[in-house]
Amino acid sequence: MRFEKPVALRYIAQLINAELVGNTEAKATGINEIHKVEEGDLVFVDHPKYYDACIQSAASFIIINKKVDCPEEKALLVVNDPFEAYQTIVEQYRPFAPSMKLKSDTASVGEGTVIMPNVYIGNEVRIGKDCIIYPNVTILDHCVIGNNVVIQAGTVIGSDAFYYNKKTDRSVHYKKMKSCGRVVIEDFAEIGAGCTIDRGVSGDTLIGEGTKMDNMVHIGHDTAIGKNCLFAAQVGIAGATTIEDNVILWGQVGVSKTLTIGKDAIVLAQSGVPSSLAGGKTYFGYPAEDASVKRRELVWIKRIPELWKKVMEKKE
Amino acid sequence: MRFEKPVALRYIAQLINAELVGNTEAKATGINEIHKVEEGDLVFVDHPKYYDACIQSAASFIIINKKVDCPEEKALLVVNDPFEAYQTIVEQYRPFAPSMKLKSDTASVGEGTVIMPNVYIGNEVRIGKDCIIYPNVTILDHCVIGNNVVIQAGTVIGSDAFYYNKKTDRSVHYKKMKSCGRVVIEDFAEIGAGCTIDRGVSGDTLIGEGTKMDNMVHIGHDTAIGKNCLFAAQVGIAGATTIEDNVILWGQVGVSKTLTIGKDAIVLAQSGVPSSLAGGKTYFGYPAEDASVKRRELVWIKRIPELWKKVMEKKE
Amino acid sequence: MRFEKPVALRYIAQLINAELVGNTEAKATGINEIHKVEEGDLVFVDHPKYYDACIQSAASFIIINKKVDCPEEKALLVVNDPFEAYQTIVEQYRPFAPSMKLKSDTASVGEGTVIMPNVYIGNEVRIGKDCIIYPNVTILDHCVIGNNVVIQAGTVIGSDAFYYNKKTDRSVHYKKMKSCGRVVIEDFAEIGAGCTIDRGVSGDTLIGEGTKMDNMVHIGHDTAIGKNCLFAAQVGIAGATTIEDNVILWGQVGVSKTLTIGKDAIVLAQSGVPSSLAGGKTYFGYPAEDASVKRRELVWIKRIPELWKKVMEKKE
Repeated sequence: MRFEKPVALRYIAQLINAELVGNTEAKATGINEIHKVEEGDLVFVDHPKYYDACIQSAASFIIINKKVDCPEEKALLVVNDPFEAYQTIVEQYRPFAPSMKLKSDTASVGEGTVIMPNVYIGNEVRIGKDCIIYPNVTILDHCVIGNNVVIQAGTVIGSDAFYYNKKTDRSVHYKKMKSCGRVVIEDFAEIGAGCTIDRGVSGDTLIGEGTKMDNMVHIGHDTAIGKNCLFAAQVGIAGATTIEDNVILWGQVGVSKTLTIGKDAIVLAQSGVPSSLAGGKTYFGYPAEDASVKRRELVWIKRIPELWKKVMEKKE
Repeated sequence: MRFEKPVALRYIAQLINAELVGNTEAKATGINEIHKVEEGDLVFVDHPKYYDACIQSAASFIIINKKVDCPEEKALLVVNDPFEAYQTIVEQYRPFAPSMKLKSDTASVGEGTVIMPNVYIGNEVRIGKDCIIYPNVTILDHCVIGNNVVIQAGTVIGSDAFYYNKKTDRSVHYKKMKSCGRVVIEDFAEIGAGCTIDRGVSGDTLIGEGTKMDNMVHIGHDTAIGKNCLFAAQVGIAGATTIEDNVILWGQVGVSKTLTIGKDAIVLAQSGVPSSLAGGKTYFGYPAEDASVKRRELVWIKRIPELWKKVMEKKE
Repeated sequence: MRFEKPVALRYIAQLINAELVGNTEAKATGINEIHKVEEGDLVFVDHPKYYDACIQSAASFIIINKKVDCPEEKALLVVNDPFEAYQTIVEQYRPFAPSMKLKSDTASVGEGTVIMPNVYIGNEVRIGKDCIIYPNVTILDHCVIGNNVVIQAGTVIGSDAFYYNKKTDRSVHYKKMKSCGRVVIEDFAEIGAGCTIDRGVSGDTLIGEGTKMDNMVHIGHDTAIGKNCLFAAQVGIAGATTIEDNVILWGQVGVSKTLTIGKDAIVLAQSGVPSSLAGGKTYFGYPAEDASVKRRELVWIKRIPELWKKVMEKKE
């Protein structure tokens, strides 16, 4: 999330009740998660395991629960509970303020775009030119839709991330991380009917130019889909994953979180992808493997009874 | 289903044209299915295999197609077709009477709850305090939503059970069992976008306190989900199943009907659960088994070619 | 797609800038794809591999990119790009003309049918008698719903086919084939909540009489479902497939395109069907096979360690 204009770090320190250490005179331009931070961004970390990664990242300002060394051009904001500090910042700069109109006053829609009945368009949504948005679609706050995009009926763009922190010491077992990111859909993309695309937690969920999705496809938060991909019906992709250009996923494929599927890869129907796949090949099964290897494996399984027989014969 | 007030059994016998045997002066408080009945309830049974279970159940009054022995404090309502008798009672006490308003006059919504545009709220629906109901959600008759519940866009609460009786002797091949149950969602539960939760046939479908569901999760009729469960996207759970507290189901897991998954169990992505699973363990595959056993199985499959080679070598 | 009245072939040749060869005085009654064409229809073909099939099909008029021999009662419309010619005809005879009303003026709804709030009903839609259409359903142009049909909340009928032509030589990578077909749902069918049924590309997607679908079922374009089928939740069926009468598909089953599942077949939960299945049997697994064979296979896999041990013992 970008702030509308840079905010003095001192002001943020005050807001979250933090001790400010380092470059105290700086201004922050936004807040983001470790994989997406840029210079000027705030990031938060509450586990020593990730201290170094955060301090070495592009982020300029680290909300942290311990005073540690940090480069002098950066700053630490030391608090007891960085997660709560993050929530406070989101509440301040991107508060939940639901629009009660079908089309929010702050949304914009380009020339030639057709918005059919019963479509909800939230605050600050931007829709480009020559799009078709079918009935009963929901486009939530801050999402950005390019030109010549088709979104079929009943689809939801910008639902909250499925992202919870476990709080065993509290009345609330799981505490939701507030989503302040966006969904960005590039030109010529087409989204089928009954799909759901979650917004980024603090970054963007991206659907690349020319990518086409069939019905009931689910895309998790902060996932980046390349250009000209094809996803068949009922594909599900978890959060913070990267799908490169021209990837084809056939029906009901499931893809786990924070992995990468390389350019031009094809994953056959119903396969499950638990870890990264190199580009340019065809995969199949669970866990998804080179399809020819996996097909041979199915043949081998069918030969077990024969093998058993051979072994038994020799026993005699 | 509870009746608004207790109904004289004689009146019900007349309604369904039944011969009344046993405690003829009693009053019935509701009607329910065998797994959920309580004292004062009607239940129906049309197969001799289940006669005993129904008569021994907590139900006080049994709609049945044969005059059999029964405890004297109970009563039988003997009819030719108990299924049709059940349908008649549902039509009488919970008739289909669709509301033609976005929010029915008989629905109630608690303080602090945000209902976004295009949400349908049916008859007698009760929604608690401080909930957020996103656009294009449908909440059908009699459903109950607690406090601090979030329901994301496009979700359907209270769709009919997928429950049909085969009628080979009729023009209609499958006859739908009328759903008169409810969906009850407890405090702090969160339901993702594009989910569907079916109402109970005559009991309740229950979503326990603090349980969180990602997008496109399907929950069947009369299923009871415990507290603080996590269900990832595209999970499907069939009818009349019990999921105990803190269970985690990863993406695209499928769970069959009328089984139990024990407390703290974890089922890994794309697994299929055809029968009950003990709590406290991690499961994987189809049929879902202890994940470490199943992972070893995958390794064993990869060793078949080597095994084949060993056997062939020894042949020579 | 049927034209409203027969159109002179000469007029169509002019529209798509084609050289007309053969029976030039004829009139065309519609346009359809090779599997569904009838006498009087146009069909298009752009690959020599399919020239013969198209010329021998029931179609009377072939839009083609080469002048070849054809029976004298038929005609060829020779163009450079048959795909583009097809698009031009669709644009002319079934242009995208979205209705901006919840219920289009050209839609008809039969007596006794209940249309609940927030339902969208497009141009020329015909809905029969005594149906129930639940809230937030979308029924798009030209779809036909029979009598006594139930469509549960949030479902989409008539979304576009997922059908793209690859155009590597253009700015647009994938070019969408315009869908001009329909969805036809016969009497007594019931469609669950959150389902999506795509229209045919140029033919019909058919849901047979008395067929019942649970929630989140996806049916691809031009697929024909027989009578009295049962599909459990989250089933997905790709395009141009034929499912015969009384077929039962359990939860999360996936079915590939252009295949046939025979009458009375049962496919168990989570199975994948990549090729045709004979009727009357029960199938399981991926690829779906006779369920008893597949179950035995699971037992054989469990015996690999024992087999390994036997082989090793004999080595010593």
